[in-house]
Amino acid sequence: MAAKRKYVRSDELRAAIADLVDANHIIADQGVVDGFGHVSMRHPTNPLRYLLSKNVAPEQVSAADIMEFDLDSVPIDARGRSPYLERFIHGAIYKARPDVNSVINAHSPWVLSFAANKIPLRPMHNKAAFLAGGTPIFDIRDHFGATNMLVTTPEQAEALARALGGSAVLLYRGHGHVAVGPSLRVAVFRAYYAEFNARLQARSMALGGPITFVEGEEAVLADETMQRVDTRPWDLWKAKVKAKSKGTSSGRARR
Amino acid sequence: MAAKRKYVRSDELRAAIADLVDANHIIADQGVVDGFGHVSMRHPTNPLRYLLSKNVAPEQVSAADIMEFDLDSVPIDARGRSPYLERFIHGAIYKARPDVNSVINAHSPWVLSFAANKIPLRPMHNKAAFLAGGTPIFDIRDHFGATNMLVTTPEQAEALARALGGSAVLLYRGHGHVAVGPSLRVAVFRAYYAEFNARLQARSMALGGPITFVEGEEAVLADETMQRVDTRPWDLWKAKVKAKSKGTSSGRARR
Amino acid sequence: MAAKRKYVRSDELRAAIADLVDANHIIADQGVVDGFGHVSMRHPTNPLRYLLSKNVAPEQVSAADIMEFDLDSVPIDARGRSPYLERFIHGAIYKARPDVNSVINAHSPWVLSFAANKIPLRPMHNKAAFLAGGTPIFDIRDHFGATNMLVTTPEQAEALARALGGSAVLLYRGHGHVAVGPSLRVAVFRAYYAEFNARLQARSMALGGPITFVEGEEAVLADETMQRVDTRPWDLWKAKVKAKSKGTSSGRARR
Amino acid sequence: MAAKRKYVRSDELRAAIADLVDANHIIADQGVVDGFGHVSMRHPTNPLRYLLSKNVAPEQVSAADIMEFDLDSVPIDARGRSPYLERFIHGAIYKARPDVNSVINAHSPWVLSFAANKIPLRPMHNKAAFLAGGTPIFDIRDHFGATNMLVTTPEQAEALARALGGSAVLLYRGHGHVAVGPSLRVAVFRAYYAEFNARLQARSMALGGPITFVEGEEAVLADETMQRVDTRPWDLWKAKVKAKSKGTSSGRARR
Repeated sequence: MAAKRKYVRSDELRAAIADLVDANHIIADQGVVDGFGHVSMRHPTNPLRYLLSKNVAPEQVSAADIMEFDLDSVPIDARGRSPYLERFIHGAIYKARPDVNSVINAHSPWVLSFAANKIPLRPMHNKAAFLAGGTPIFDIRDHFGATNMLVTTPEQAEALARALGGSAVLLYRGHGHVAVGPSLRVAVFRAYYAEFNARLQARSMALGGPITFVEGEEAVLADETMQRVDTRPWDLWKAKVKAKSKGTSSGRARR
Repeated sequence: MAAKRKYVRSDELRAAIADLVDANHIIADQGVVDGFGHVSMRHPTNPLRYLLSKNVAPEQVSAADIMEFDLDSVPIDARGRSPYLERFIHGAIYKARPDVNSVINAHSPWVLSFAANKIPLRPMHNKAAFLAGGTPIFDIRDHFGATNMLVTTPEQAEALARALGGSAVLLYRGHGHVAVGPSLRVAVFRAYYAEFNARLQARSMALGGPITFVEGEEAVLADETMQRVDTRPWDLWKAKVKAKSKGTSSGRARR
Repeated sequence: MAAKRKYVRSDELRAAIADLVDANHIIADQGVVDGFGHVSMRHPTNPLRYLLSKNVAPEQVSAADIMEFDLDSVPIDARGRSPYLERFIHGAIYKARPDVNSVINAHSPWVLSFAANKIPLRPMHNKAAFLAGGTPIFDIRDHFGATNMLVTTPEQAEALARALGGSAVLLYRGHGHVAVGPSLRVAVFRAYYAEFNARLQARSMALGGPITFVEGEEAVLADETMQRVDTRPWDLWKAKVKAKSKGTSSGRARR
Repeated sequence: MAAKRKYVRSDELRAAIADLVDANHIIADQGVVDGFGHVSMRHPTNPLRYLLSKNVAPEQVSAADIMEFDLDSVPIDARGRSPYLERFIHGAIYKARPDVNSVINAHSPWVLSFAANKIPLRPMHNKAAFLAGGTPIFDIRDHFGATNMLVTTPEQAEALARALGGSAVLLYRGHGHVAVGPSLRVAVFRAYYAEFNARLQARSMALGGPITFVEGEEAVLADETMQRVDTRPWDLWKAKVKAKSKGTSSGRARR
């Protein structure tokens, strides 16, 4: 019966999906991803599931595209929608990291250079203090030899999750970076500021001389503070994508 | 009585607040700040007070968000609005510098690299001549050990104001820069051109060979001239933000 | 008789022309070309002909501008339209490379520096894996002495096609680069990611230290995978240009 | 009598002014100038006069702002409009160079670094071939000691014109660059591609190794060809500014 297949979403789930759609548009608008890349969040009421779009460019994701997966990255109710080839990254990290509730696979250009050169990111400013926990570099070739440079199996995803360890960000050689956080907002914040920091760090390296990084206790305190104000950039970035879809180019509400 | 609490603003104050709102939008539109950062101005009729938005991204500030503070950075009539954590920077500078009527805490990316590398900015062109007065570098760690990298106490703000001395710009390691001026327009001009100059200076350093800076009497004369034409970029930048909020992307009036 | 001159296009040809017009707008919007540069495709039903716009900036191409040429680059039915001076590049490559169904002459800035310095591009990430097949550098001066730096004769175009050999991309000193592909979408993808890769490679070279490129079997596998997902960026880029022409600045459909 | 003061413009003059207004908007839109900078053209029917906007940001110029000057840069009929302080640059060049019919004082950022480092620009690609004629560097300090870094007297302007000699572009230390051409379109083209070339040249210098420039006979031929196709970028750039003022962000006409 058609009625039987009707999918019912709780208010909590609806709100989570709306946030996830916004996050997709934000990371596209802010240059964190291009036509590829993906952002997921743990299911708001079932920690053994996560939410992730079907296989579409983040900028074009809508609520109907959001699929539900178990932690083995098996779709719960695909209804004909094709998932991302790399969804296993998300499931493996949610399994390995109970503290993580959002995962982003980003394709920001500056970070790619650090990954290719095997140079870890180190925080240049307070908003990137989360980088002080380390930015391990994952080279799939070291683990699996010649691949198509995508993480497309549970085994590959587990190796990536092991490389990530307890860090907030992992550099993925020849592909991009992965940012995780306790919430969708913090993960978006980290994906964005990892790229921002890579740009600053590259420029400081070019200027020459010693660089003073944010480090030690200072980094811990700065990160704690920034996590408490994650609403500020989120609200701004969200206003920008909403304004764009209305045909204005400003992130200000019209008052 | 409710009527008693009604807040009456003079025409002069209204005009000042309108300018301050424009300045918030301009510094966001011109990339001087991101979701964080703030701009204040001294109260137009009471030099012992200053005006600063509540805790919101500069791009989203409206007139109703503008709060009044005394020079200890205590809000006069908060009406439930939360102030910026770092408002003390503004109060301390207004106390220490009677010549200053506007303060900006900027987060421009290029300047951050100069701050991290402890390389002073030096003027590359006539519009940045104000940099010839020196760009001291403030590292909060040198004064207060491990902090969350924000200036959140009167003592920290006083240390920053002392470091600023009589300069127009201070580089704030791991955080951003502070630009001050005799007027809101000049402060906005300086915050913008400090970043513009950092970009030029980094590129000139990369090109190699000696760099001819604007210096000495030349810098004094250039700065005097530029302060007299501060209306030109202000009018342009203001037209741009007005046009954006109307859904066009041009700074030209339609005639 | 006027009716006799009416030009009849098959549905298949109409669809191909619509795609080619979109490709023109996409490469302009994505910065692959400026006011100059051109994109062609092999005729969908006659492999001895190709389609290319008349002499106009890619951003301004419309369906009525698309001309048909034989492989000697002679227009079939010009109807007063002036062709590009450099159309011979397209004809010569279609002759030499039966596997190629689309050719782009790009003017992206980063690639120009690699051409001038005679440094080949090498793939920094999975999406640029097609570069692993080599990026020969063509200097017209080596073959023809002083020219106006345009390929404007069949002989010059044949020399360029010989230099291209079996590669996907050729760097054209002092002018730009040429990207080819088995389809219009793949050629657009390659023209775009060649520039993206040049930027990454330049930055990695500046960071110092050894760079891990995508290479060998890994590059072959990555390229095969990326060619299968060429619809994703195409759909996104196309949505962006459609949205722009409607006055919004977002690539999202309004739903 | 009021009627007597009515200013009558010939059709030819009207067309020239319309072009000049477009040129102002184009150079702002393309980043050749910021809030400052200016573009002039020789009067279409009186070679002893030139046309230049009143003192306003180029992006905001309209037809009513265009003033007429004699070659001593004295306004013919100011009607209360304030001229640019630096108008003398224009008059001095028109006097010294009968072949020049348009002058642009640009403020593009990359060129400023070459001026400060006293490194001449050399053409990296066919569209910048006009640079092969030399890019002399003018340092006002060498001639006049400490100034406000503006060319504000006939003497200073004559020194600049002498430094320019027969070249198409002059680098003006600490200020910007000057581009001249036989027509408004060619001057705009040159101002734009001088900046584009500076960016390429800086990147090539950073990549290391010898750079192959466009030079000798090749540069002469390339420049001749490019001058014949100056309509193409002009039409595109003009369409972009027209589209912006209508609230779309595309340079395509809607068809």
